[in-house]
Amino acid sequence: MKGTEEVLNVDEPIRVALIGAGQMGLWHARSLAHDIEQAELAAVADPDEDAARRAAALAPGARWSAGPEAILSDPSLRAVVIASPDAAHAGLIERAAQAGKDIFCEKPLATDLAEADAALAAVATHGVKLQIGFQRRFDPAYQRAREVIAAGELGPVELAVATTRDPLEAGRPGLGRDAAIFIQTTIHDLDSLRFLTGLEVVQVYATGSYFGEGSAEEDEADTAAVVLRFQTGALATITNSWRTAYGYDVQVEVMGPLGKLQVGYDRQTAVRQFSAQGVCHDHVYWYIDRFGAAYRREMEHFVDCVARGVGPDVGGADARAAQALAEAAARSLREGRPIDVPPPSLAPVL
Amino acid sequence: MKGTEEVLNVDEPIRVALIGAGQMGLWHARSLAHDIEQAELAAVADPDEDAARRAAALAPGARWSAGPEAILSDPSLRAVVIASPDAAHAGLIERAAQAGKDIFCEKPLATDLAEADAALAAVATHGVKLQIGFQRRFDPAYQRAREVIAAGELGPVELAVATTRDPLEAGRPGLGRDAAIFIQTTIHDLDSLRFLTGLEVVQVYATGSYFGEGSAEEDEADTAAVVLRFQTGALATITNSWRTAYGYDVQVEVMGPLGKLQVGYDRQTAVRQFSAQGVCHDHVYWYIDRFGAAYRREMEHFVDCVARGVGPDVGGADARAAQALAEAAARSLREGRPIDVPPPSLAPVL
Amino acid sequence: MKGTEEVLNVDEPIRVALIGAGQMGLWHARSLAHDIEQAELAAVADPDEDAARRAAALAPGARWSAGPEAILSDPSLRAVVIASPDAAHAGLIERAAQAGKDIFCEKPLATDLAEADAALAAVATHGVKLQIGFQRRFDPAYQRAREVIAAGELGPVELAVATTRDPLEAGRPGLGRDAAIFIQTTIHDLDSLRFLTGLEVVQVYATGSYFGEGSAEEDEADTAAVVLRFQTGALATITNSWRTAYGYDVQVEVMGPLGKLQVGYDRQTAVRQFSAQGVCHDHVYWYIDRFGAAYRREMEHFVDCVARGVGPDVGGADARAAQALAEAAARSLREGRPIDVPPPSLAPVL
Amino acid sequence: MKGTEEVLNVDEPIRVALIGAGQMGLWHARSLAHDIEQAELAAVADPDEDAARRAAALAPGARWSAGPEAILSDPSLRAVVIASPDAAHAGLIERAAQAGKDIFCEKPLATDLAEADAALAAVATHGVKLQIGFQRRFDPAYQRAREVIAAGELGPVELAVATTRDPLEAGRPGLGRDAAIFIQTTIHDLDSLRFLTGLEVVQVYATGSYFGEGSAEEDEADTAAVVLRFQTGALATITNSWRTAYGYDVQVEVMGPLGKLQVGYDRQTAVRQFSAQGVCHDHVYWYIDRFGAAYRREMEHFVDCVARGVGPDVGGADARAAQALAEAAARSLREGRPIDVPPPSLAPVL
Repeated sequence: MKGTEEVLNVDEPIRVALIGAGQMGLWHARSLAHDIEQAELAAVADPDEDAARRAAALAPGARWSAGPEAILSDPSLRAVVIASPDAAHAGLIERAAQAGKDIFCEKPLATDLAEADAALAAVATHGVKLQIGFQRRFDPAYQRAREVIAAGELGPVELAVATTRDPLEAGRPGLGRDAAIFIQTTIHDLDSLRFLTGLEVVQVYATGSYFGEGSAEEDEADTAAVVLRFQTGALATITNSWRTAYGYDVQVEVMGPLGKLQVGYDRQTAVRQFSAQGVCHDHVYWYIDRFGAAYRREMEHFVDCVARGVGPDVGGADARAAQALAEAAARSLREGRPIDVPPPSLAPVL
Repeated sequence: MKGTEEVLNVDEPIRVALIGAGQMGLWHARSLAHDIEQAELAAVADPDEDAARRAAALAPGARWSAGPEAILSDPSLRAVVIASPDAAHAGLIERAAQAGKDIFCEKPLATDLAEADAALAAVATHGVKLQIGFQRRFDPAYQRAREVIAAGELGPVELAVATTRDPLEAGRPGLGRDAAIFIQTTIHDLDSLRFLTGLEVVQVYATGSYFGEGSAEEDEADTAAVVLRFQTGALATITNSWRTAYGYDVQVEVMGPLGKLQVGYDRQTAVRQFSAQGVCHDHVYWYIDRFGAAYRREMEHFVDCVARGVGPDVGGADARAAQALAEAAARSLREGRPIDVPPPSLAPVL
Repeated sequence: MKGTEEVLNVDEPIRVALIGAGQMGLWHARSLAHDIEQAELAAVADPDEDAARRAAALAPGARWSAGPEAILSDPSLRAVVIASPDAAHAGLIERAAQAGKDIFCEKPLATDLAEADAALAAVATHGVKLQIGFQRRFDPAYQRAREVIAAGELGPVELAVATTRDPLEAGRPGLGRDAAIFIQTTIHDLDSLRFLTGLEVVQVYATGSYFGEGSAEEDEADTAAVVLRFQTGALATITNSWRTAYGYDVQVEVMGPLGKLQVGYDRQTAVRQFSAQGVCHDHVYWYIDRFGAAYRREMEHFVDCVARGVGPDVGGADARAAQALAEAAARSLREGRPIDVPPPSLAPVL
Repeated sequence: MKGTEEVLNVDEPIRVALIGAGQMGLWHARSLAHDIEQAELAAVADPDEDAARRAAALAPGARWSAGPEAILSDPSLRAVVIASPDAAHAGLIERAAQAGKDIFCEKPLATDLAEADAALAAVATHGVKLQIGFQRRFDPAYQRAREVIAAGELGPVELAVATTRDPLEAGRPGLGRDAAIFIQTTIHDLDSLRFLTGLEVVQVYATGSYFGEGSAEEDEADTAAVVLRFQTGALATITNSWRTAYGYDVQVEVMGPLGKLQVGYDRQTAVRQFSAQGVCHDHVYWYIDRFGAAYRREMEHFVDCVARGVGPDVGGADARAAQALAEAAARSLREGRPIDVPPPSLAPVL
């Protein structure tokens, strides 16, 4: 019997470290440990030591720590995946860039645009790769939709309607600041619409309401409605909520003069039950149910880019553009008027 | 063999006249002539004499004329159905009210609020009944949705998304004025959302674009996006277009903390074809395909109200409220800012 | 003002009589009285005098009686619609044919093939028109499916699956004989499959079970499964039940080497409700909900054929073919083996 | 930084060998190499040496060979996965059982019942575990359906309709014998229906046709229709084809007096395209698209059973029962009559 080592010349795997081992980080850890052959999950850091240990246990030999220092100072680690709380993203990007590591960071890039620009400057200065976790870009349905639109099958886009809603049960820590819904949730729709249409937004109108328990801070919202105007005159609406009873609800529709596309589905299990009460099926409940494979595919893309030394498809410029639109939405909510947005080409060069 | 005249004491039918025998008017003529036992289509007026004659031919003995004078002066006609061009609605309502006739008028009530108020004042002065053609209120799906919401099955409404789009092929004469899309099309969504949620709108933001051929008048739009804020903080978005390739597209979704409702369907014929190219079915194309039965039912309701001497479910106050919101949308488009709307209780009493 | 009588030369309507004013007969009465301009509902007979009177009341001047004699002997009545209990169909066809009247008869043609042939012989002898109530042939979805298949878009048909199920609540008087389900229910699928595929059946295998209350007669079934072999080798299965909790369930699927068609839908009202319990909608419940328009259209076709003096699209030959297949199914159930069926061209010439 | 080896006491993985590295075997190899932590893919055998090498390359250190001897004689290998051509299954089960290895074998167990019984006798004699690859039992939709039925939510099952169809493009080597479709394809429906209903079949009627190119052997079929009668009188139909243009088509419907369940879906990608030609989406094309996760989960179950030393949920008795029904179907086709089947309790004890 012959051994495979005779016939294969396997590349050294990319040693990747995870910073932040919550629900999302743990999913990325699994992808790195089990699904992506090119990668090795080599280290995990999380202030919650149990979480760090649990994620590290997924890969033989992976080490763990509470803080990120041991990771950032270990030259054998080529890349880091940042899945810490949103407020820490920008600072960790800066530190990882200074340490010369390629970076995958969960969205959002930062909690405001100044922070974002500082992080992107560090990335540029140190010449590392940066990918942002806009996982929808790796979902087959979004990719197919983009292809159809780019091929002109709808004609020029005129109108779009996007929905992202999370279950009430998921809770929302927010960012300790107003209008967090735009940075945490709307940002996915802002990026998706840029991705699908290939167009840039020139004006944002946003408003929101708070229906949760207790009294809301000024401008705090758990429900939002947004209107975008693109450079071509195309319009889009976005609605967001953190309060669904029925699950995770992500849909988008894009229309041009030749037709429209609808992206999304609502059934989780392929069963429908018919009874005297009607016809019923279940609903997608968690974001992992809808986008689990896309999270794996974005991580594969990142590891592949690191291995090949090329920049990821969804990098700093896309992250900054979505961030700028989310900020404009927050400002629109505060000021009660539509906000003009400079096109990305006029934004600070990165 | 026995005759039915021995056993039945049939009431005299309501003699109804039609003013305006275009596509919509002809549909109403058919309902009156064939489907509504209580009604008799007795006269038709249309400047297009062929159209008038064709509609009158649906009912034995119905008379026709080019102008509405013969109708308005004929005391045997108890009610009129106004399906003339939008710009003529308010004036005809006034004249019919002065003539003492009960009135069914296609939406919109008027082309602006001043006209609307004049028409409603005439209705009030002369004590006639007025029903406006918001046919969705007579669609079983909208009625079921309203019941579910009113029963509290969604909890208090927090968010809604409405869509009304017409085929490009349908064309659009417009009103000879800017922002006609709000008066002609958005108005259906404005009324539907009031009907479904039972809530009043306090603020409107609207914007629009023009993608049609030729150059647009200032503020002319064939594509629109609207955000509504209701008195409770609930939010809604509306998108409208006059440019679909695929047909007539009417959908609405209403969400509260206990769930959401989706109203709408897209398939016209109950056939799906599976081939190497995928799975395909047709789409509802004309508004009559979607709401033909609702148009009949609204007319039945009108005739029944006339016969019983009671006010219709959807009368002047609802028509004025939708009109005021459509006007606010047009103003928002012109001024580029959200417009506060006084609640109907603060509007001029009718 | 001008009267329509000046411009129209209206034909005399066809005077039609109804025999049997149960649920189905009442629906036909409504179509004749209100929807079909060419027809006049002139007389109704039903042993249940209240039922006869109620149906006659739909049309001014219509007369009613308990027995059919007054109808059959009235030369002013040009056509009869037979919607009496199944066991009376064949006898009434014979009598109506002898009376020289064109005949629309609800399916089945007869309760056995000998009776059917006697009835068809009378129709042939007296030269009257006969249409059988296979209303699916007048449903837009079935018509579209037939066109697609006839155009070769599926290639030669290879396989089909048909379902017809009725709500338990509808009850089933049966025919006072065994295997009534094949004559009453399966016959719709037998005709549909012939209509859709354009093929003739050469072998039938059928079996059944009885799940209702009480003890079943030998060979009585309320649940059935059937396999058909067509002349080309194409195969089809049919399942039937009289015991659904969820409503009226009619679906058919036809496959060839280039694709398949699915005909059917299950939602009645265009509303879906999303909650913590999942996503639910209602189901079509009564056959009238699914095929109400098709029943009207078949009656229009009948009246139009009578007026033009031509034979209806679905006449004696089709009725006999379906009857022969239903009989073969009953015999297969009794004998526990597949039954060969002579192609219609070898059946007694009618 | 701490190593995970300090905190975890990882069990030795189960060393598993793969025999047969075609499309299905390769999928299992991936699951064993990447997805199932408890397992190690340690060896692969396939007469196609390239295929063997490619599968072995998935796991570091895995060895490969053309024949199975090296695997069967290696005591370090605890379990084998048999994914060789159908005709080799039973013989390999016997040899693996003699070698003391736990066995996962793709369906079918054997190509006839005598072979199957010999294989099962070897399994019993040597006391090894056997799991058969009825992957649908590991699909969440089938599992959910079984739970609903077992909980009595449909009432006692009365009627079922099952469909399994493969794309023409997939080709079909057959078994070098007649009626192979029942052993290769129908067997999935036979097992699914037993699994879902919990009932045993007492009679089978089957027929088939051949539409492929060239002339068919006697009794060869690429299209089949089957009727099952269960011990309770419940009935089921099955249709199978190897000739779809549109993809992989697996659906099942189970009905009782309280309702029905439909299991299945047809859309692969969550996109619908609306155009002037209608509304279209893609279709599930390959069996892996529909059941990829179920194949992984059945392998996890097998490895877990091996590790825990317990018998799998779907073992020899279920495999034999489905085999006996497939044989009865083949015999029914040959003899042109329904075939009675002894209930499994009367079958040779294993």
